[in-house]
Amino acid sequence: MAITLGHNQYGKAETRVVRIFRDTEPHEIADYNVSVALVGDFDDVHYNGDNTKCLTTDATKNTVNAYAKEAGDAVREPESFGIALAKHFVDDVPQVSRVRVQIEAYPWDRLSHNGTPHPHAFARRGAYVRTVTVTYDGSQLWVVSGVRDLIVLKTTDSEFHTFYQERYTTLRPTDDRIMASSVTAQWLHTETDTDWGASYGRVLATLGSTFAGHHSLALQQTMYAIGQDIITEQPEIAEIRFSMPNKHHFLVDLSPFDVENKNEVFHADDRPYGYIEGTVRRDDAPNPGSAAFDPGQGW
Amino acid sequence: MAITLGHNQYGKAETRVVRIFRDTEPHEIADYNVSVALVGDFDDVHYNGDNTKCLTTDATKNTVNAYAKEAGDAVREPESFGIALAKHFVDDVPQVSRVRVQIEAYPWDRLSHNGTPHPHAFARRGAYVRTVTVTYDGSQLWVVSGVRDLIVLKTTDSEFHTFYQERYTTLRPTDDRIMASSVTAQWLHTETDTDWGASYGRVLATLGSTFAGHHSLALQQTMYAIGQDIITEQPEIAEIRFSMPNKHHFLVDLSPFDVENKNEVFHADDRPYGYIEGTVRRDDAPNPGSAAFDPGQGW
Amino acid sequence: MAITLGHNQYGKAETRVVRIFRDTEPHEIADYNVSVALVGDFDDVHYNGDNTKCLTTDATKNTVNAYAKEAGDAVREPESFGIALAKHFVDDVPQVSRVRVQIEAYPWDRLSHNGTPHPHAFARRGAYVRTVTVTYDGSQLWVVSGVRDLIVLKTTDSEFHTFYQERYTTLRPTDDRIMASSVTAQWLHTETDTDWGASYGRVLATLGSTFAGHHSLALQQTMYAIGQDIITEQPEIAEIRFSMPNKHHFLVDLSPFDVENKNEVFHADDRPYGYIEGTVRRDDAPNPGSAAFDPGQGW
Amino acid sequence: MAITLGHNQYGKAETRVVRIFRDTEPHEIADYNVSVALVGDFDDVHYNGDNTKCLTTDATKNTVNAYAKEAGDAVREPESFGIALAKHFVDDVPQVSRVRVQIEAYPWDRLSHNGTPHPHAFARRGAYVRTVTVTYDGSQLWVVSGVRDLIVLKTTDSEFHTFYQERYTTLRPTDDRIMASSVTAQWLHTETDTDWGASYGRVLATLGSTFAGHHSLALQQTMYAIGQDIITEQPEIAEIRFSMPNKHHFLVDLSPFDVENKNEVFHADDRPYGYIEGTVRRDDAPNPGSAAFDPGQGW
Repeated sequence: MAITLGHNQYGKAETRVVRIFRDTEPHEIADYNVSVALVGDFDDVHYNGDNTKCLTTDATKNTVNAYAKEAGDAVREPESFGIALAKHFVDDVPQVSRVRVQIEAYPWDRLSHNGTPHPHAFARRGAYVRTVTVTYDGSQLWVVSGVRDLIVLKTTDSEFHTFYQERYTTLRPTDDRIMASSVTAQWLHTETDTDWGASYGRVLATLGSTFAGHHSLALQQTMYAIGQDIITEQPEIAEIRFSMPNKHHFLVDLSPFDVENKNEVFHADDRPYGYIEGTVRRDDAPNPGSAAFDPGQGW
Repeated sequence: MAITLGHNQYGKAETRVVRIFRDTEPHEIADYNVSVALVGDFDDVHYNGDNTKCLTTDATKNTVNAYAKEAGDAVREPESFGIALAKHFVDDVPQVSRVRVQIEAYPWDRLSHNGTPHPHAFARRGAYVRTVTVTYDGSQLWVVSGVRDLIVLKTTDSEFHTFYQERYTTLRPTDDRIMASSVTAQWLHTETDTDWGASYGRVLATLGSTFAGHHSLALQQTMYAIGQDIITEQPEIAEIRFSMPNKHHFLVDLSPFDVENKNEVFHADDRPYGYIEGTVRRDDAPNPGSAAFDPGQGW
Repeated sequence: MAITLGHNQYGKAETRVVRIFRDTEPHEIADYNVSVALVGDFDDVHYNGDNTKCLTTDATKNTVNAYAKEAGDAVREPESFGIALAKHFVDDVPQVSRVRVQIEAYPWDRLSHNGTPHPHAFARRGAYVRTVTVTYDGSQLWVVSGVRDLIVLKTTDSEFHTFYQERYTTLRPTDDRIMASSVTAQWLHTETDTDWGASYGRVLATLGSTFAGHHSLALQQTMYAIGQDIITEQPEIAEIRFSMPNKHHFLVDLSPFDVENKNEVFHADDRPYGYIEGTVRRDDAPNPGSAAFDPGQGW
Repeated sequence: MAITLGHNQYGKAETRVVRIFRDTEPHEIADYNVSVALVGDFDDVHYNGDNTKCLTTDATKNTVNAYAKEAGDAVREPESFGIALAKHFVDDVPQVSRVRVQIEAYPWDRLSHNGTPHPHAFARRGAYVRTVTVTYDGSQLWVVSGVRDLIVLKTTDSEFHTFYQERYTTLRPTDDRIMASSVTAQWLHTETDTDWGASYGRVLATLGSTFAGHHSLALQQTMYAIGQDIITEQPEIAEIRFSMPNKHHFLVDLSPFDVENKNEVFHADDRPYGYIEGTVRRDDAPNPGSAAFDPGQGW
């Protein structure tokens, strides 16, 4: 029996870099949290503490900060910034064979001053985080865009009934419930050069529109409908993956107080919650395996 | 020497009640997190475990839920909902002499469906939490409105220099820095019946507008200017209190890489941060002491 | 009508300073999060942006870091470190008239290496945070020690019944329930020089012992008993304040599955929770008012 | 082009079940957070909202709660509890072909009462969370144990130098630094029936002992040494995976204040941090692929 090193990667996580574009009016802001993970010829670091080939995580951070200026207009969108960084690490550092760059982008809205948008002042949107994962192995480049913590809710048009019955099933069917979720989604692009901001905006618009308009028999069905509509409308998207917790809103029993509750008063529960994960794909798109949506160690 | 019971209060915290107004189109949603603290004749509970006068915290929760229907239109705004609850606990439960009702309200925006606002579907705004503290002692009623986690940033028009010098002062003066803060503010109303939603909207509009337009020599100065403008424009506000952390954005030194950084690339630091607290008052308004802004145990 | 500046204070929050004592074997570690708030002659900063008297928050941070070495053995306990800092800011900076120093101390345990305690390696205890608030106005000094996030639970010896009945009371009485709380407590010392570590250890020992041994009729009663025992045993403590959320564990109804649940299976709920706040005092101790337990802006 | 459903799974996440064993003295407590994800014949739920085969997530929760009693002594360890649940879902629900059960277990210590361990009262340990992932497909069973948020630190015996140099490398080498990490680790068992508690205790003991005793030239080297020692000593472990953030402690420059800092005063930084992920394996163990360490959607 021998013991060996298996899958490993390392880098600097959560470099919080803010880039201001101030040479034009109005100013623009790119607010990023960048995490880089490198794969390559690093066995000796693990086996012997030999750092000869070890690019320091500090240098990784320095590179992120310097590229926030050096990468020019690519910095304006997280996808193009991630691509610039990914290409650097594999193409310029010989011992790196594969890199994953993850970026969280925090959107800001322009503040109003006396009724008109101000050129230098902003408020954080807060409604969601925009995410990007770029993976590059020296020949192939995968670009995944995403959203996190987008909380949506509909007050009607959601049923849930006619479900499987067994010993532990006690839920009562309903033909009118609140449906709410905090959406995390990531989608793989078929191309590596597009108008990232416009593509992102279209995904979010469709996500909201289909969630609003879909008459739901199951959260899974609504999730699939959202994915289907997005992929139908945007040929640049090969696959979209969702995690959609079912944020339960339970009708409160007010009958002990002789108060009628006609679907009006709900308890918003924290835990447990339904957890729905699903993938919607073009069947002519190549399966990315585990390359594009990097699972790290499995957590 | 004897040992005695000092200040005490109790109740149910964080009842997460969601009220849907569905009898009209479009639907409306009130999404609240309600915490109730009761003061009164409860010494025997502490000294002897005698619960004869102890209103259960479970009943407090039930009351919040039932009032989400029974209080009718008062539920639409957190201030009026808090007042209805506060009056109930003191006026209807004999042993309660004072109550503090704190409400967090989570704002939602209507989703668009095919380009028009949908009547039943919403996305959480996320940019801030609206807060209310109502205190009532059977005769006087204090209503405090507030905002939490409103993150603002300006990319210029902020200087900081000419400050006090002593042994530990090493900061270099600047005439152009990023200024950012996560604003928590609470303001005391002079009246107990007003258009709460409109009043709240005006405060937020002034806060954003003055932050944007103020040329700042110190975060304290900007904070005071915001408070001054709010109180000047809204006679229904007696006093406003702020906690405004100075969320530091440090210019990154890119000179080791021969990259010039003309106020363009910043590190958004987490800790430590400047912490600025201040109060702006009408000098003809009575001092609320500790009655209106309930400090609890001091934390 | 005129508008004026009311209560204000400022400083640097959350300076994360770690001091290693390495001149002896074994090494020792003091791991602190220090927040300083200064009160004084700072009106001109607010009114005019005149920073002439403004001690920068950066200098405040520098002072905390430098004192982690300069204060010598006082650094070993958070109370004595806080006192050293508090005296500096008021005594050495003329325009500062009052200061509050808050310290969170994170306890570490020594790791075992081949069965014996290692002199240089540690694991964070994690069970609670030790807290200190020192307030000083140039003549009087208040020292408050505390604990946060100490989670305790007892599986029996807790009853709750014979409580007040009114319209919204539906809770069923119980003579055997789980009682659990996440204890936050702060206690005011009568003296400003004592063996802080030993005093702290005794408080925690009594807190645990009384919680364990007390047969409870109400969480308030147990809280009072804990405070009473601590003050009885430790003459150096004038007053202790508690916030003790009642972390509800609800018995799960397993009868639909023909499974008997004899107080064995519980749902640990998140929200809402009972929130119990109380104070236990020596009646011969002076009332500290709001001086010692600084409530800041009321939040 | 057609659109299809890809990988999907669903279930109830974060059922917070607490089991008290009270038929013996002293009482014992099992405190779990259970998340279940089911894979199977659920396409029609997504495509058509046909719930005929949909086991409700509510029934999943009910099952977890009922099994906390029905599974008897298997409930005492999270691994055996997870196995019992996993077998139920695949073996008893025909449309389920694969299940992943994830459990977080929160350890509690017995409180002392007057100097002796109390039979009914506990304090949460807080130092780490014990984790389990059980995966079952009807024939094969994978049991993964783990730990999360175990924070360790050593004050010396850690060097880092002789690393790769390129354009963005500015870090200065050091032969004596603080090394700290918050360890997340998961390890795959070769067997499905063992003394889980004893096995867990040995892993944690080795982890602490090797971290303490290892003279480190790189965090990666220490991580590998820990894994190597664990696998060498415990033949029941096939593979262990780590995520070990390098929690940086930066030496504070006190020279502007004429204070010497001989590796005594450090700033504990939050972000960014080094992120080191690695796997140590027996080379005679079968590669579990993505079966055992379920990556979900890649996040």
